[in-house]
Amino acid sequence: MRILGIDPGTGLLGFGVIEVKGGKTALVDGGVIRTNVHQPLDERLVEIYRHLASEIAKTKPSVMAIEKLYFAQNVTTAISVSHARGVAMLAGKLAGLEIAEYTPLQIKQALTGYGRADKKQMQEMVRVLLGLKEVPKPDDCADALATAICHSMTVR
Amino acid sequence: MRILGIDPGTGLLGFGVIEVKGGKTALVDGGVIRTNVHQPLDERLVEIYRHLASEIAKTKPSVMAIEKLYFAQNVTTAISVSHARGVAMLAGKLAGLEIAEYTPLQIKQALTGYGRADKKQMQEMVRVLLGLKEVPKPDDCADALATAICHSMTVR
Repeated sequence: MRILGIDPGTGLLGFGVIEVKGGKTALVDGGVIRTNVHQPLDERLVEIYRHLASEIAKTKPSVMAIEKLYFAQNVTTAISVSHARGVAMLAGKLAGLEIAEYTPLQIKQALTGYGRADKKQMQEMVRVLLGLKEVPKPDDCADALATAICHSMTVR
Repeated sequence: MRILGIDPGTGLLGFGVIEVKGGKTALVDGGVIRTNVHQPLDERLVEIYRHLASEIAKTKPSVMAIEKLYFAQNVTTAISVSHARGVAMLAGKLAGLEIAEYTPLQIKQALTGYGRADKKQMQEMVRVLLGLKEVPKPDDCADALATAICHSMTVR
């Protein structure tokens, strides 16, 4: 099974593709989509959509695992992230992917066994579980891979 | 000029198309896109996208005027509306429309001359300005038409 993980954001959207086969999990691809804060929102959304559509066409995942929003405080950030998140889910669904949503708590629990893991512990687990020498950079890419791994552990 | 106005929402998204020609403004089409709250979000976003894309293909507007989000309190609603709003803007931009955003205050000021108009006054202005016998129903459709009219007055 090939899983595309997404850490949604407008300025910086992290993505990571993993392949799960015979109990082994391997990194296929990963990166971030950066859009310019000075560009109009509609142009940035098109950029995110096109970039994701081409990543899906390139790596051919069957599932998109995407982090659920979970903001208690900052409405402005929630609004901004949600625009990108809606577009990301649309890109996945239109390409025929199954869409699975996970809260930050679910992702932490799946990777480390408890819900209070910090960023460093999470990144280290991503590194170990994918058998990498270094933690994938930037953080948004590592977070996206963590979401993909969470899905692989949840459906296992 | 033909303008597609959008009142964004996930459960209910209002839309309305107007034609502005020689100082006259006329209603072309209008309605709402309803999606089922019990369906997964990704399916609802695809439904909104496809419905809007087909409305654009049918009515051929050159501009999308869309209400800006402006929530001080309810983060959950803001997150939900923003997913649909991102998808609506994407549908417009991918179809080659210019995207114009207006705050509720700008829309009220454009239609009634002041920013504290209530819902009834706004709907009555939509009715009068479009030369209709009755206020367009439901409210989300009337709000979408108000946004389209706001754009026509702003660029005039």
